Amino acid sequence: MDLPLSELAVRFGCELRGDPALRVGRVATLAGAGPGDLSFLANPKYRSQLASTRATAVVLDAASAPLATTAVLVHSNPYATYARIAALLHSEGAPNAGAHPTAIIDPTAQVAASASLGPYVVIGPRARVGERTQIGAGCTIGSGVSVGADCILHPRVSILADCEVGERVRLFPGVVIGADGFGFARDGAGWTKVPQIGRVRIGNDVEIGANTTVDRGAIEDTVIGEGTKLDNQIQVGHGVQIGAHTVIAACTGISGSTRIGSRCIIGGAVMVAGHLNICDDAVVTGSSNVTHSLNTPGVYSGVIPVSPAAVWRRLVGRFKRLDALAERVRRLERGNNEPQQQDQD
Amino acid sequence: MDLPLSELAVRFGCELRGDPALRVGRVATLAGAGPGDLSFLANPKYRSQLASTRATAVVLDAASAPLATTAVLVHSNPYATYARIAALLHSEGAPNAGAHPTAIIDPTAQVAASASLGPYVVIGPRARVGERTQIGAGCTIGSGVSVGADCILHPRVSILADCEVGERVRLFPGVVIGADGFGFARDGAGWTKVPQIGRVRIGNDVEIGANTTVDRGAIEDTVIGEGTKLDNQIQVGHGVQIGAHTVIAACTGISGSTRIGSRCIIGGAVMVAGHLNICDDAVVTGSSNVTHSLNTPGVYSGVIPVSPAAVWRRLVGRFKRLDALAERVRRLERGNNEPQQQDQD
Amino acid sequence: MDLPLSELAVRFGCELRGDPALRVGRVATLAGAGPGDLSFLANPKYRSQLASTRATAVVLDAASAPLATTAVLVHSNPYATYARIAALLHSEGAPNAGAHPTAIIDPTAQVAASASLGPYVVIGPRARVGERTQIGAGCTIGSGVSVGADCILHPRVSILADCEVGERVRLFPGVVIGADGFGFARDGAGWTKVPQIGRVRIGNDVEIGANTTVDRGAIEDTVIGEGTKLDNQIQVGHGVQIGAHTVIAACTGISGSTRIGSRCIIGGAVMVAGHLNICDDAVVTGSSNVTHSLNTPGVYSGVIPVSPAAVWRRLVGRFKRLDALAERVRRLERGNNEPQQQDQD
Repeated sequence: MDLPLSELAVRFGCELRGDPALRVGRVATLAGAGPGDLSFLANPKYRSQLASTRATAVVLDAASAPLATTAVLVHSNPYATYARIAALLHSEGAPNAGAHPTAIIDPTAQVAASASLGPYVVIGPRARVGERTQIGAGCTIGSGVSVGADCILHPRVSILADCEVGERVRLFPGVVIGADGFGFARDGAGWTKVPQIGRVRIGNDVEIGANTTVDRGAIEDTVIGEGTKLDNQIQVGHGVQIGAHTVIAACTGISGSTRIGSRCIIGGAVMVAGHLNICDDAVVTGSSNVTHSLNTPGVYSGVIPVSPAAVWRRLVGRFKRLDALAERVRRLERGNNEPQQQDQD
Repeated sequence: MDLPLSELAVRFGCELRGDPALRVGRVATLAGAGPGDLSFLANPKYRSQLASTRATAVVLDAASAPLATTAVLVHSNPYATYARIAALLHSEGAPNAGAHPTAIIDPTAQVAASASLGPYVVIGPRARVGERTQIGAGCTIGSGVSVGADCILHPRVSILADCEVGERVRLFPGVVIGADGFGFARDGAGWTKVPQIGRVRIGNDVEIGANTTVDRGAIEDTVIGEGTKLDNQIQVGHGVQIGAHTVIAACTGISGSTRIGSRCIIGGAVMVAGHLNICDDAVVTGSSNVTHSLNTPGVYSGVIPVSPAAVWRRLVGRFKRLDALAERVRRLERGNNEPQQQDQD
Repeated sequence: MDLPLSELAVRFGCELRGDPALRVGRVATLAGAGPGDLSFLANPKYRSQLASTRATAVVLDAASAPLATTAVLVHSNPYATYARIAALLHSEGAPNAGAHPTAIIDPTAQVAASASLGPYVVIGPRARVGERTQIGAGCTIGSGVSVGADCILHPRVSILADCEVGERVRLFPGVVIGADGFGFARDGAGWTKVPQIGRVRIGNDVEIGANTTVDRGAIEDTVIGEGTKLDNQIQVGHGVQIGAHTVIAACTGISGSTRIGSRCIIGGAVMVAGHLNICDDAVVTGSSNVTHSLNTPGVYSGVIPVSPAAVWRRLVGRFKRLDALAERVRRLERGNNEPQQQDQD
């Protein structure tokens, strides 16, 4: 698609500075753009690239606009505006409505006529698939599952029995919704499985990345609130409840029964213990370990960066002797400063 | 299913206190239960809910029984007893025996007549599938694989060539058994692949969670002992041997050739280095890093909880200057307490 | 396959010491080998096993050769030589060329006649599959995807639209190439999706382990260089660029836009933050957190090993009071050594 800047300015509420007849057909980075490309400036650290970009136009905010040497579309939120324009310029046609001949649909399932089912999709008894929803090749939709309208399930997603998925939800390949939570009761020498009879309920406008798993509740449901976005390779344990508009980066694990609020930002590879409460608007930086509830909004951190290995070995040695170091300080405070043989350097 | 308490007491060896004719049809939490529901008390911290629960009956131990205001089923292990009753009340009918017409079974494979194969299952040459085993949609069973009786493979499980799975094993979607271990030999500028010719052998009563991967051995087999339970998103490297009745929580990684004993409890997001021995009955708390063998049963830990980011930055700074701090203490011990310019606060 | 040592010596450039007519048919460990087996010694710590092995022959280097009691194949790189011989002895026949009748190939796709497509494979519009490439059951190859010659895709791999895969690439089950990167623009109370229009480009001779995910670029491509090997359960974020012949162990996550050089060795469960540069020949030990660029080749580390839980609790307490400890030291340096009530032990 190739559109004039005048049209983009009107559709997306931007102030246009430049020739309204100029046309753009795709998006590119400031450094990589050429004629016909639209770029954007969201992070001020790239401002210097405004002088050299070969883009036809740039989306940016009013503060940066005077630095541009190209046509500009000025908006107070240039990144979101860029995102909307990119979605328009790079929109793909939806697949045709209807089911591929190899899709197996249980006679008791209800699939909207406008939905699109790919090859080798399996839809179980009493499942429902909403209007215009696309289900990719090899997806398995269990009995009693409900998938709302306008969802996109990429290939090889599995949703197990009785789970509910809202509208406009995107699920990427390898996502597993509703596998059993990890519940076993000690029983003599071994473990007895605790039936996992809760479901998973996923709100509208949720996105879940490739190979992420969301377990069904033991008794009560696991819940992902509307507008929440989960990256790849995340594990959400049974009975977890996540609020609205929270984002969680890849490789993070949330243990069972923990509640995470709305508008939280959880970095990648964060591990959250079970049965905790994380309040609304909490931010947890990547690789942190959350082992107690976070009751106050704010930024929390717990990662120690790498060091050269030789330095690190000394630091770990120091760490493991912190008790001894504190004892030495206490002795000095008491006026007894004879070095301790076992602890000195 | 709806059963009288009298029958549950007899079947599960409980002492019944209350009206034996009362009937329960499903399980619920103490807080969420209503009439007709059975609940349980396993964790004393929920004792106060006994007074207010609307459950028809509660499974609990003798110590808690006097606090109940409902009918009770008394058992010394209320959680395991609850698990068994829940399995009975919420049992699902097994799928019909036989293979879906789209299941592709190699003519040399042996599939028990009582087994159930879902749509788009692929069973390779010389594979065997035991009595009453259920294989979900889209599973791929490689050549020479053996799956025992009474297993449940949820949709989209892959077992690669020659691996062995015992009886009553449950595998959740996305599980991959028998992918190649990560073995490469340095070879000039690059790496030569080391063929991975071992198998994976999985004992009876094992459960493996969604998207968990268990690699085949380089030469000798990777082994998961009977009754062991693995949660979601776990990685088990080549040649790992895990004993019986060990439980491992989600997102944990076990590097190659490590041996883990029986009855261990390994928390989530634990990382275990390669070529280690972890003894029987070891407990490792979540997010710990095991880089040396654990030869004594006991609880091991290695996680530093998050702090508010500003506090954490100071702590990391202190940690990285531990050497300098120790040097300052040593100077004080020697009677030379002139502050060091570079290290003082 | 069963071959005389004379032939192996010639084919793999080894010096043979022993009877050239001896034959070996499979590989085994020194401890596990029996007659007819070939073993190897790569790690000197197993040297003592040379005296007791029942192998027919052992691949080793010149320094270890005199210790052997069996026939030996001497090579300066015994591990890589072993790997090559093992690949020969344990080679499996390739599946027959051609597509299983259930493979669905878009009419606009180009699949080489020598390629092999398993059951329930789906090949999208304009996709290309090279000579002799094997695509396992249930793989989904998106529109416009290119897969080079001599690749092996195990079952249940998904490659999304327009991604490029080189020659001799191996992908294990559950691999997802080209899912959307995690890009959202804050937009009022919620988040607007940023279209991910870059691709993934994978070089020749790359191997990617089970359930690993490589996201497509936001604008510019995600790139995996030739000869690079990724283990299982790895997450590669959007726009990451990895050089040639780098190896990355399981459970590691690489955040978006980070560049990793060539010949790096990244351990398991390493977390790398976004927008960093890791130089060529960097080594990062397992479980480390890389939160700043690494500009100098060398070994980097950041893991604190587990301790017994009681010891660990004291250490964490000490760590959290490091600021206070440093303050006590400063007071001592100033000659004011009155113990501080709040900080003493």
